[in-house]
Amino acid sequence: MSETSPTLRLRRLGIDTHQEAVIYMHRDCHVCRAEGFSALARIRVTAGGTSIIATLNHITGDLLAPGEAGLSETAWTRLGAPEGADIAVNHPPPLDSLSLVRGKVYGQRLADGAFAAIMDDVVAGRYSDIQLSSYITACAARGLDTEEIIGLTRAMVAVGKRLDWGATPIVDKHCVGGLPGNRTTPIIVAIVTACGLTMPKTSSRAITSPAGTADTMETLAPVSLDLNAMRRVVEQQGGCVVWGGAVNLSPADDTLIRVERVLELDSEGQLVASVLSKKAAAGSTHLVIDLPVGPTAKVRSQANADSLGAHLLAVAAALGLDTRLVRSDGLQPVGRGIGPALEARDVLAVLQGTPDAPADLKTRSVTLAGALLELGGGAREGAGVGMAAAVLADGRAWRKFQDICEAQGGMRTPPRSSHRRAILAERGGLVANIDNRRLAKAAKLAGAPDARAAGLDLHAPLGARIETGAALFTLHAETRGELDYALAYVASHPPIIDIGDI
Amino acid sequence: MSETSPTLRLRRLGIDTHQEAVIYMHRDCHVCRAEGFSALARIRVTAGGTSIIATLNHITGDLLAPGEAGLSETAWTRLGAPEGADIAVNHPPPLDSLSLVRGKVYGQRLADGAFAAIMDDVVAGRYSDIQLSSYITACAARGLDTEEIIGLTRAMVAVGKRLDWGATPIVDKHCVGGLPGNRTTPIIVAIVTACGLTMPKTSSRAITSPAGTADTMETLAPVSLDLNAMRRVVEQQGGCVVWGGAVNLSPADDTLIRVERVLELDSEGQLVASVLSKKAAAGSTHLVIDLPVGPTAKVRSQANADSLGAHLLAVAAALGLDTRLVRSDGLQPVGRGIGPALEARDVLAVLQGTPDAPADLKTRSVTLAGALLELGGGAREGAGVGMAAAVLADGRAWRKFQDICEAQGGMRTPPRSSHRRAILAERGGLVANIDNRRLAKAAKLAGAPDARAAGLDLHAPLGARIETGAALFTLHAETRGELDYALAYVASHPPIIDIGDI
Repeated sequence: MSETSPTLRLRRLGIDTHQEAVIYMHRDCHVCRAEGFSALARIRVTAGGTSIIATLNHITGDLLAPGEAGLSETAWTRLGAPEGADIAVNHPPPLDSLSLVRGKVYGQRLADGAFAAIMDDVVAGRYSDIQLSSYITACAARGLDTEEIIGLTRAMVAVGKRLDWGATPIVDKHCVGGLPGNRTTPIIVAIVTACGLTMPKTSSRAITSPAGTADTMETLAPVSLDLNAMRRVVEQQGGCVVWGGAVNLSPADDTLIRVERVLELDSEGQLVASVLSKKAAAGSTHLVIDLPVGPTAKVRSQANADSLGAHLLAVAAALGLDTRLVRSDGLQPVGRGIGPALEARDVLAVLQGTPDAPADLKTRSVTLAGALLELGGGAREGAGVGMAAAVLADGRAWRKFQDICEAQGGMRTPPRSSHRRAILAERGGLVANIDNRRLAKAAKLAGAPDARAAGLDLHAPLGARIETGAALFTLHAETRGELDYALAYVASHPPIIDIGDI
Repeated sequence: MSETSPTLRLRRLGIDTHQEAVIYMHRDCHVCRAEGFSALARIRVTAGGTSIIATLNHITGDLLAPGEAGLSETAWTRLGAPEGADIAVNHPPPLDSLSLVRGKVYGQRLADGAFAAIMDDVVAGRYSDIQLSSYITACAARGLDTEEIIGLTRAMVAVGKRLDWGATPIVDKHCVGGLPGNRTTPIIVAIVTACGLTMPKTSSRAITSPAGTADTMETLAPVSLDLNAMRRVVEQQGGCVVWGGAVNLSPADDTLIRVERVLELDSEGQLVASVLSKKAAAGSTHLVIDLPVGPTAKVRSQANADSLGAHLLAVAAALGLDTRLVRSDGLQPVGRGIGPALEARDVLAVLQGTPDAPADLKTRSVTLAGALLELGGGAREGAGVGMAAAVLADGRAWRKFQDICEAQGGMRTPPRSSHRRAILAERGGLVANIDNRRLAKAAKLAGAPDARAAGLDLHAPLGARIETGAALFTLHAETRGELDYALAYVASHPPIIDIGDI
C-alpha cells in the first residue's frame, strides 16, 4: 500500500445504486493512472479516519471536473464525509475470505472461522454484488450441514447488535414463508402480550413474497423504530411489531436478502441461519415456528419439512433457544388479501371480530398463540388455545394491538389501490387447485410489496363452488403499468386457479 | 404490457459501468411512478425499433432534468440512438430462463434447449451481473455432465458467428491455462504456417491469469481485427494470432468471462465449452490441446487431467473436431517473463534464436507444433517434432512471424516497465518449490494484464542453486501504487519460492 495516497475532492452525485457502494472517477484522472485503477476495480476510499470499499465506474464525459471524485448515495452515507472533503483512494487489501467462497463452490465445508471472516467482510461492504451473488448461490447449490449452519448463525449474530431484555421468557414466533397472506404475527403479538408475556417482535420485509410482516405492519403503524424506541414500546406494552432491519439486529442478513431477492433464491441453510440469528440477536428465549407444508408452498413435502425442522431444532438448541415446531396446511393462501395493505385489512378484521373476518387466519393465529402461551409458561399444557381464543373474542387483543400501534408512533389506515381488475372463471365447477407461487408472482407484478396497496384479493378458496364468469381473484395496483403487467402474466400463465367438475 | 408507453428524452451521461447496461432516471420521474419502477429494477428501453434491457439507478439530485433519462456507455452503445432521442421505457417480459438457473442450483440437469434459452438471454444482455454470477457459480458448484457440456457448447456456438474457411484441415491449438508464462501459441502459429498448414488463431484475453495470448500478442501487433481483416491476413499468410472477442465469434463467452474474472472461477464444464465453442466457431477441424499438470497449475493432478481430458475429447468429437491431447509438466512457470510484454520478449527470443532464449519455452513449442503438424497432415507420424525444430532453427518461423505481424497492422516493440523491484532470497540453497498461483497473483497485483509492461521476471527455476541475497524474481509495474501493492502481497504471503537445503 502506498504511504501517501493522492487525494481527490469529494462530490455527492445523487445517484442511488441501491445495493453497492460506487465511486465515480474520471477515466483520465491522475489518481486512476497513478494507482492503476481499471473499471469495476474495488477501491478503498478514506476520509476523516473512515474507510469504505467501493466499485469504480469511470466517467468519460464532463460530469466530474479534474481532481474530483463522486460517490453513490450508499457510499456517501457509509463514508459520512462532507461535500468538498479531501478523500484518499487506494487499493484495498486482498479479500481473503473470497477463497473460502470458492472453496464452498468446489465442495469444501466451511468452518466457524470461515463464516466469521465472510460475514465480517459482508457487513463491512467489502463484497460486490457479483461476489455476494456467488456466495449465496454456492451455499444454495452445495448446501450447508448442521455444524455449518450453526457456524453461519453464530457469525451472523456476532456481526450485529444483540438485545438483552433483562428478563425471561422472551417469546417469539416465526413462519417459514411461501404461503401468501399468512399474516398471523400481529394477531399473535396482540394475544400473548394481552396475556402478560413479553414479545418484542422484529419482523423482516418480503424476500421473495408479495409482503413481509414488516411491510404489512407498516400500513398500520410505523415499524422503522430504533433500538431505544423499540425498548420503550416493549417496556410500556410488553410487545411490539417492528422492522428488524431498522434496529440493525442482523446487518449481514439485510445485505444478503437484497441479493437473494433478485435471484429468488432462499436456500435451507441460509434460511435457518437468517431466522435463528435474528431470534438470538433479538434476545428471544422461547420460539414457536410455523411450518406450512404444501406442493406450492416454500416447504413442499413432509420430507422437506422433516429436514428443515431437524435443522431448525438442532441449530436453535445450539443457540439456547427453546423451540417448538407447528406444521400447518400449506395448500392455499391464508385469509383473502395478498399484499401489504390487503393483508392488513384481514388482520384488522380478525382482531376486531367482524362477521366476515377470514376464519382460517383466525384459527391459525389462535393455534400458534396457544402454543406460544404454553411454551412461554403463560398457560398450562393443553390450555393455550382456549386462552388465546378467549382473549381474541373479548376484545382484549384488539385493544392491546391499538395500544401497541399508538406506542410505535400512531395507528394508520392502510392505503387503498387505485387500479383494480377481476379475473373471471372461464367455466363453472369446484376450485380444485391453487398455484400459490403463480398467485404470489401475479401479486408481485402488480407492485407488491413496494406498492403498499397492490396485490390481490382471492375470492375462490379450495373447494368453493364457482359459476362461469364469477371473479376468482381481483388484482390491485397503484399504477396502470403494473396492473397491465400483472394481467399479461396471468393471461400467459394459465391456470393459476384450477376449476374441476362438481 | 401497456400499449402506449410514455417517452423520455435520452441523454448520454458518460458513465462507464463496464459490464452492465444502466439507465438513470430521476426518482420523482413521472414514468418511474406511472410504471412502478423501483431501484435496481430491470427495464426495457426502446428507441427506433431497438430494445435493450438495463438496470435502473435512481437519480436523487439534479443530474437529470424532468423528462430526461440517462444511459451508461454500454447501454448507449447497445441502443444506438442519438442524444435527445425519444425513448420508451417499460417492464421487460419475465426472464423465464432464470428458473432454469435456479433448477441448476438445486441439482437439475439442463437440457440442450435450456442452454439455448440461457445463452440467448445472456448474449442479448438480459442478465444482470448478479444473475450472471449466480449462473456461473451454479454451474461450477453442481458441475455439468458430458451431455450438458455438449449442449452448452452448441448453444454458445449458435449465438455467435461461425467462420467457414472453405478448406480443410484448419489447425488450432489450445492450452488449458494456469501455468504462467506458457506462451507457445505465437511460436506454434509461426512454425506450422511456415510449413504450409492453415492456422487462423483466435486467442482470448486473460481470465484469471496475468496474461492471455491476445494480451501478449497485442504488445507485438494489433489483435483487434474484424472478420474481414482477419480473413485477409489468413489468405495472405496462412495464419494469424488475433483476439477472439473482436471478431465476435463467441459473444456469450466474452460476457461470461468478465464475471468469471471477478469471481476467479473457471469450472470444468464452462472451461470445456468456452474452449471448444471458440474452436468450432473459428471453423477449426484439427486441434491439439496442451494440458499442463501440477499441484499449483489449473489442472492439479493426473486424475483431474483424466476427467478434463475425457470431457474435452467427448465434446470435441460431438462437435466434429479431430483432437489430440498433450500432457505437459505444470510444476513451474514457462520461460522467464510473466505478464504481456515480458512474455512477448521471451517469445521473440525463441523465434530469433538468441543464445539466452528460454529452453523450456522452445521445447514446449516444438513439441506442440510437431503434434499439430502430424495431426494436420503436414508431417508423417513421428516426424513432426523434427520438422518443427528445423523451421525454427533456420529462421523460417521468425520470418513468417514478422510477416504475420505486418499483415495484422504492423509489428510493435513491447513496452518496458517504469517501476521495478527485485525480491531477494533470505537464505541460500536449492529452489525446491514454486507456488505458481501466488506468483501469478503477485504479477496481477503489479498490474498485469491491463498494464502491459507489468508482471515479473523469474530468475530462480526449480533446482537452481541460489545464494543468500540473490534475486528470486523481479516485479515490474507501470505505476508506483501497483508496485507497492504487489510488494505488500509478497511480503505477507511467504514463501512464494521455497529454498531447500543443498
